[in-house]
Amino acid sequence: MTKSAGEVKAPQKAPGNQPKTARGEATRKAILSAAERVIGAKGYNDASIGHITSEAGVAQGTFYIYFTTKEQVFSELVLEMGRLVRHTIAEATQGIEDRLEAEKAGLTAFLEFVCAHPDLYRIVQEALFVDPQAYQEYYQTFAAGYRAGLEAAQEAGQISKGDAETRAWALMGIGRTLGEQLVVFKSDKPISEIVASGYDLIANGIKP
Amino acid sequence: MTKSAGEVKAPQKAPGNQPKTARGEATRKAILSAAERVIGAKGYNDASIGHITSEAGVAQGTFYIYFTTKEQVFSELVLEMGRLVRHTIAEATQGIEDRLEAEKAGLTAFLEFVCAHPDLYRIVQEALFVDPQAYQEYYQTFAAGYRAGLEAAQEAGQISKGDAETRAWALMGIGRTLGEQLVVFKSDKPISEIVASGYDLIANGIKP
Repeated sequence: MTKSAGEVKAPQKAPGNQPKTARGEATRKAILSAAERVIGAKGYNDASIGHITSEAGVAQGTFYIYFTTKEQVFSELVLEMGRLVRHTIAEATQGIEDRLEAEKAGLTAFLEFVCAHPDLYRIVQEALFVDPQAYQEYYQTFAAGYRAGLEAAQEAGQISKGDAETRAWALMGIGRTLGEQLVVFKSDKPISEIVASGYDLIANGIKP
Repeated sequence: MTKSAGEVKAPQKAPGNQPKTARGEATRKAILSAAERVIGAKGYNDASIGHITSEAGVAQGTFYIYFTTKEQVFSELVLEMGRLVRHTIAEATQGIEDRLEAEKAGLTAFLEFVCAHPDLYRIVQEALFVDPQAYQEYYQTFAAGYRAGLEAAQEAGQISKGDAETRAWALMGIGRTLGEQLVVFKSDKPISEIVASGYDLIANGIKP
């Protein structure tokens, strides 16, 4: 969970129409948020554009102002969730100078995000089948930011030297699995306890 | 990656007919192996029983001696892959007394397994949608064995004290993501290098 993750921009996929006004942007986000709930609940195949506009409370024609197809809103949803995760972690770790402290704050923010977006796992996992490129972008953008953050922390002597790329994937794996334990496997362990154990492993694992 | 993972039996799902002879068992395994390749390549929806029997080189009627439906062969495939992973790790760590050494050998065996079974990720991830119970069993059986192994190692003073359940999920997460980096994200980093970095993090993370 890195404060740098939010700084790396994902390559842009062919977008639908980008809204030009704040109201347009709000409508677009409402449609994406509805897509998150509908596709999370029904799965990609059984979800329809009609379900999504109905959940969003907008006319079906409004959908086509912002998106072209169900495939396209799904791809955009996966990338948007990736941006949201990275933004959330970047905000939570902003101003924290010490990398290990930032790992703790980032892991906490990630697990809280996952609990607020319990369909994240289903949606991203389904992307492996529906839009493998979005799946790859989701993880690779995150990994690139994480790696850059670990490299900077190594330079600053805040963590031990090591292969930043493999470490980035390993640390992402810890966050991913602990989040899945919460929302897919329905653990009732408090986030603070999970973070304490996960952070203990991470901090000892990479401290100088 | 635990030497105890292989010892925990998954609860049995309603099975197809269990073969009574070695030849029958070989045919059943050939069908499961074909299902692994066909479903891995085509995905569950596009794979048919005809594709699977054709890939296995058996008559379609033979399928029904061992399995009842495509759903059932898929569920059995997910559980069989879980058994295979656990068995592979148990064999690789057999006789290794020190837990940290067993972690290293187990991680190596897991990554080698993943490279030999590159469709493992697609199949298990698709189970979240096709058969959520098989998905849960796959990870929970693994986690239960891992946890038991970590608890025993704590008792023996081979690792530091900690929450064995959260640690089990975190360590599973490391193996899972490093394996995915290899076969889904097509990293060309040698397994030995990935293991060296991953093990360094794990060993420092949980050593006494």
